[in-house]
Amino acid sequence: MTKRKDLFAEGPVAVNLGLESFHRSLVDQGTPSVHVDWRPPSQAAALISHLDNGAIDAANAEAARRLIDSEAVLVDIRPAHEVVPGLDRGVILHAGPPVTWERMSGPQKGAVIGALLYEGLADSPEAAEKLAESGGVRFDPCHHHRAVGPMAGVLSRSMWVFVVHNSTFGNDAYCSLNEGLGKVLRFGAYSPDVIERLRFMERVLAPALAEAVRRSGGINVRNLTAQALQMGDECHNRNVAATTLLLKELVPHLLASDLDKETIREVFRFISGNAHFYLNLSMAACKAASDTILGFPGCTLLSAMARNGTDIGIRVAGLGDRWFTAPAGMPKGLFFAGFTQDDANPDLGDSTVSEVAGIGGFAMAGAPAIVQFVGGAPADAVRHTREMVEICVARHAHYKMPVLDFAGTPVGVDIRKVVSTGITPVINTGIAHRRPGVGQVGAGLLHAPFPMFEEALKAFVEDRARIAHTTDSPKGV
Amino acid sequence: MTKRKDLFAEGPVAVNLGLESFHRSLVDQGTPSVHVDWRPPSQAAALISHLDNGAIDAANAEAARRLIDSEAVLVDIRPAHEVVPGLDRGVILHAGPPVTWERMSGPQKGAVIGALLYEGLADSPEAAEKLAESGGVRFDPCHHHRAVGPMAGVLSRSMWVFVVHNSTFGNDAYCSLNEGLGKVLRFGAYSPDVIERLRFMERVLAPALAEAVRRSGGINVRNLTAQALQMGDECHNRNVAATTLLLKELVPHLLASDLDKETIREVFRFISGNAHFYLNLSMAACKAASDTILGFPGCTLLSAMARNGTDIGIRVAGLGDRWFTAPAGMPKGLFFAGFTQDDANPDLGDSTVSEVAGIGGFAMAGAPAIVQFVGGAPADAVRHTREMVEICVARHAHYKMPVLDFAGTPVGVDIRKVVSTGITPVINTGIAHRRPGVGQVGAGLLHAPFPMFEEALKAFVEDRARIAHTTDSPKGV
Repeated sequence: MTKRKDLFAEGPVAVNLGLESFHRSLVDQGTPSVHVDWRPPSQAAALISHLDNGAIDAANAEAARRLIDSEAVLVDIRPAHEVVPGLDRGVILHAGPPVTWERMSGPQKGAVIGALLYEGLADSPEAAEKLAESGGVRFDPCHHHRAVGPMAGVLSRSMWVFVVHNSTFGNDAYCSLNEGLGKVLRFGAYSPDVIERLRFMERVLAPALAEAVRRSGGINVRNLTAQALQMGDECHNRNVAATTLLLKELVPHLLASDLDKETIREVFRFISGNAHFYLNLSMAACKAASDTILGFPGCTLLSAMARNGTDIGIRVAGLGDRWFTAPAGMPKGLFFAGFTQDDANPDLGDSTVSEVAGIGGFAMAGAPAIVQFVGGAPADAVRHTREMVEICVARHAHYKMPVLDFAGTPVGVDIRKVVSTGITPVINTGIAHRRPGVGQVGAGLLHAPFPMFEEALKAFVEDRARIAHTTDSPKGV
Repeated sequence: MTKRKDLFAEGPVAVNLGLESFHRSLVDQGTPSVHVDWRPPSQAAALISHLDNGAIDAANAEAARRLIDSEAVLVDIRPAHEVVPGLDRGVILHAGPPVTWERMSGPQKGAVIGALLYEGLADSPEAAEKLAESGGVRFDPCHHHRAVGPMAGVLSRSMWVFVVHNSTFGNDAYCSLNEGLGKVLRFGAYSPDVIERLRFMERVLAPALAEAVRRSGGINVRNLTAQALQMGDECHNRNVAATTLLLKELVPHLLASDLDKETIREVFRFISGNAHFYLNLSMAACKAASDTILGFPGCTLLSAMARNGTDIGIRVAGLGDRWFTAPAGMPKGLFFAGFTQDDANPDLGDSTVSEVAGIGGFAMAGAPAIVQFVGGAPADAVRHTREMVEICVARHAHYKMPVLDFAGTPVGVDIRKVVSTGITPVINTGIAHRRPGVGQVGAGLLHAPFPMFEEALKAFVEDRARIAHTTDSPKGV
């Protein structure tokens, strides 16, 4: 046992709790210091005791069951205007909570400009900008139209979308097809080659894939994701295995169709050259799952989390379609050659629907190689998953991580747990350049900001109190 | 601190060192016991001090560099008789060290019968058996012909083989194409459907793939393996990712060829329906690497390890083409429905060339999902890799395991280390039925038997002494 007189023999070591900057200052000055990642409990945490937590737990368990049981099947690929509700002429959908043109982030503006050029609604970037400024475009979140979009998430009428059917609960969800990395629309680029690629996708890629999907009789996306999670993907920023598994499903049906070999080859090359192709399909599947708990009474689980590059917003199942927002955070990560953190736009995209459905950042333990893309070390990947267990109510029955003894991924983010622990969802994400027209500059990691969870919890408590008052029931739920 | 009088308060617990059976007896009798996996050092270990270990270390380092630097490229697929040296009429190659028909294991006999039927050298299983018994067939190990074969490893003239070129060192290696799991020739089955499949492979599959491979200008196998190891494969008994990655390489070239879509579809279906298809290609790549150290002077690394279902044999680089053998061990693992451990044939196949080249059992840490196929828990997979580090001289520069912080797989098994630690190479393997004609019954794990390593070390020491005597040099190396 260490004797007391030895305790300071080698000089004191500071133990810092709370603000990390104090710890960093000590280290900078050469003073040994250990930082403990701790923050005082939120005052909002006290509100939780006012709730009928037993009833909420039951509602959450049922809602988590819905997230888990949702079997997503790719049943078709169609032009957006044919299937996405309310995608009228002059409407442009975007990622994240609602936002005006004035407050819109650079990359999202860039993607809008590109979509207007692509739709023939403007013949130059300047004209497109003018049209948007003048109120000639109606903006609405994808999430309000059973759709999701990665990064800028811009969806216009002529783009084709994956049609994903939730065979367990009957609802559908939509997402555009992935263009690849770098200089692409969803990262805010709109140069002629970007528009040309979108036209190829509209005229060649999507119709060919649609033919294959229809011939297949439906491709089970949940099964593909489950397999990919055993092959080092987490299906948000690493979709290497999932994309090849999807290709494996599609090829026999492409070959059985009337398509000529050269077209099939072009389609195959496009997909096999883009290890992120699966992302958009996975996002539609996650949307098809998370929409089943939108408006679920008395439920404190997240039903949506999305960013538009200006704000991040969450929806809580029991509070229906309300958004609780905060300024979008800044991802830290790895940057492509020639770019730095200074080029980064704040956090962007609907792809956090992955985390809402229990994959992505929540499944990183099974995808250690992702740290080569988003930064950090493999041990961090495991740590992120373990941390997310703290704020989730269930483990996924279909999505397993071999490295954690085949444990299911954590699923069902409970805002009560977020507020009481101070732990917010981890997000791994692509990073767009802050200016319109540039494109992707890297990929990284961040945690969702805390205050919107506090705000949502307060609203939930008020809502319960209002219902209790209205219905004269003795307890809030 | 525990007081001494408390030491036996809860009764004694036995700590057992050495033979595990003593420990098991205690446990069976309800007596608490802890087993320590330890054995007394081999007497042969003392011989190591007689060697010029500095010179051996230098030779081993250079040999390990050869194993690691070997860049295997799939350059062609050809009928075996066109490329495999010495595969004359009446010759049948087999897995493992040399063996006679009399001593041959059931599944290897079954595969020989199948090959004789396939080649039209016999018109019934009985006639085939009679031909083999009568000495009308010349048997020789694949390993003696720059080839390897999984399980029974039977290779006959008309079968097509992968031609893998070692672009770093210039040598070639060969392996047949994988038939799939279950009732297949390499597991000892020879029924008409097995022979029919071999004919399909000869007439449709292999020529089509050959066309694609030639059009590709060569497919880098080392790169595919490196990618697959980051996707949960260990490329011996888990080749899910590697097989899809190979398909991804082949499809564009199949589509660019003159082959009709229906043929391409058939070829695609055959490969995509067999998650082990990549194994044989990987084995040829491992053979192309390990052949570069065959006969490497003064080197104590394994240059081969192979089993024929009766014996297991090893070759040590510095001892040229000599085999050191022991009775083949019995894998323990998981069995297909309807089969048990009693049905299992002892360890079989040249596929341990994987472990010699630093993948397979040595890379299991990165492939935790494999335990669903071969048994055990994910923690065992990590343990096996860490254990193999103890007996290897290097870490692979191209084959990394993300889960172990991107550490390279252990490579280069040094028989000195095996003898001094008592740790032998871990092998994960398919399991064949012990009777001819049945096929695969499961998959499992085992360690190579120890005595052949002792014997090899003794031979190495004698060989060094002989050389020292002959050349009158002062030290053994």
